Amino acid sequence: MIKTHLPLQECKDSLEKALDRLLTPPEGPYSYIFHAARYSLLTPGKRLRPLLVIATGETFGVSLEKTLNPACALEMIHTYSLIHDDLPCMDDDDLRRGKPTLHTVYPEGQAVLAGDLLLTLCFQTLASSPNLTAKQIVDMISVLSKHAGGTGMIGGQSLDLFSEDKVISWETLKAIHMGKTAALLSASLEIGGIAAGVCTSILKELCLIGQKIGLSFQIIDDILDVEGDQTTLGKPLGSDQENHKTTSISLLGLDAAKKLSEELLQSVLEQCKNMQIEQSPLAQMLPKLVHRSF
Amino acid sequence: MIKTHLPLQECKDSLEKALDRLLTPPEGPYSYIFHAARYSLLTPGKRLRPLLVIATGETFGVSLEKTLNPACALEMIHTYSLIHDDLPCMDDDDLRRGKPTLHTVYPEGQAVLAGDLLLTLCFQTLASSPNLTAKQIVDMISVLSKHAGGTGMIGGQSLDLFSEDKVISWETLKAIHMGKTAALLSASLEIGGIAAGVCTSILKELCLIGQKIGLSFQIIDDILDVEGDQTTLGKPLGSDQENHKTTSISLLGLDAAKKLSEELLQSVLEQCKNMQIEQSPLAQMLPKLVHRSF
Repeated sequence: MIKTHLPLQECKDSLEKALDRLLTPPEGPYSYIFHAARYSLLTPGKRLRPLLVIATGETFGVSLEKTLNPACALEMIHTYSLIHDDLPCMDDDDLRRGKPTLHTVYPEGQAVLAGDLLLTLCFQTLASSPNLTAKQIVDMISVLSKHAGGTGMIGGQSLDLFSEDKVISWETLKAIHMGKTAALLSASLEIGGIAAGVCTSILKELCLIGQKIGLSFQIIDDILDVEGDQTTLGKPLGSDQENHKTTSISLLGLDAAKKLSEELLQSVLEQCKNMQIEQSPLAQMLPKLVHRSF
Repeated sequence: MIKTHLPLQECKDSLEKALDRLLTPPEGPYSYIFHAARYSLLTPGKRLRPLLVIATGETFGVSLEKTLNPACALEMIHTYSLIHDDLPCMDDDDLRRGKPTLHTVYPEGQAVLAGDLLLTLCFQTLASSPNLTAKQIVDMISVLSKHAGGTGMIGGQSLDLFSEDKVISWETLKAIHMGKTAALLSASLEIGGIAAGVCTSILKELCLIGQKIGLSFQIIDDILDVEGDQTTLGKPLGSDQENHKTTSISLLGLDAAKKLSEELLQSVLEQCKNMQIEQSPLAQMLPKLVHRSF
């Protein structure tokens, strides 16, 4: 098992350059919508999902030359989902990554289209990934479209909207988190694995790790809303309670929620041990991701 | 050259069944958004783009077993674009295919998500197309994401929104039509060609045919708005002038517009003759498509 780890900053620099290049505005009449999409995509963010693709690739022995395009595709699809989630007809948010949301700066219709552009470009970026076989690319597109689609990310967001101002169960809240957050984390890990040519049973393990990490991540989100500081969380404290939002804490209680998030993380680390990747870039990244020390 | 032609009704029946199957709502918490997407996708329509995929495939010697999934993918991406174009922040339309638009029946946020679902499912459907090589699938995804993206369909819709209430030139109007309409027709023809394994130079010809047919189609749209009957056009007559919309007629004059649309169609038929496909299902379909006798 190769366990080299590119310095994080080097990865992030490569990512930023590639995102900038892949979204170069064309000459001619269609440049406007590219500038709108660039406003959102090129705003600095944590780039968690693309870094997970890269770390998983490294864990199983492939480097950036195979994972850079797929990593960028993940950031594009994540950013499109943020643009659409922030729209007035969805969560109606004014701030994102410390900047005014896209629809407050560009006309709302153009914001919808900028999201559509990034979703479409995500698949174009995968289809033009260098150094991968056509089979690997098709497998990546299958995995991503499944996790980002109606039984994954979009299903979760739809269920979240549908559940607004309703009393929901822990099962429903879990389905929201599994869709909105965990699905794209699973996709990131699986796509890193596909780049490295791992077998189906490893892909299943990676999918499971993404699910557990995603749920743990969201529970910590709820905990930070009560206990954390605003900078770590990236939104005002106590906003969940103020918005009468059902959270893991309102459903399970603070102590049980903390216990569950920790159990999920431990279970993931156990899984990494069984897969003999406990010293890998991926395994080192996961606790930092959950605890926001990234 | 094989020139069999499946009866149109048989093709349409296969399409409707396949669309229904590909968008089966899952058991469990995520079914709601599938029902929203089904409302739009399964409303009967002309299915022009999928039929173009199938006709082009047949023209170059492959049958439905290779073109059915790609054809469905084209209808999905077309339907997503209609759902988003109809939104209040875009064209704000209440009627589509004779039924209330999706966002007037479902919450607006769910309509945005249903569009997103269809765009994502379109690529999932291509990725799972049976009887094609991985290389053919990747080529189809490249072609479709290019034509449907920021320099194609989305670019055209963005430019159209941007040009609202502005005086625009014929060059700009042409760029709107090439993006909004022609790009997806080119994609349909090229994807049919890829299914049949045609060479790059034929793909270029097919792309060009799509561009000319798309432009001719839109000019006829403007002419029908002045001269036609409402049933053929599918929207109230005279609406362009009433909405102070710049059209090919307001820019070129009625006679020149008619002449241009006819020249474009003739040029396409000439091209088909040079390609020795003038008796093919595709060549027979194109004039009907332009003149709405389909």
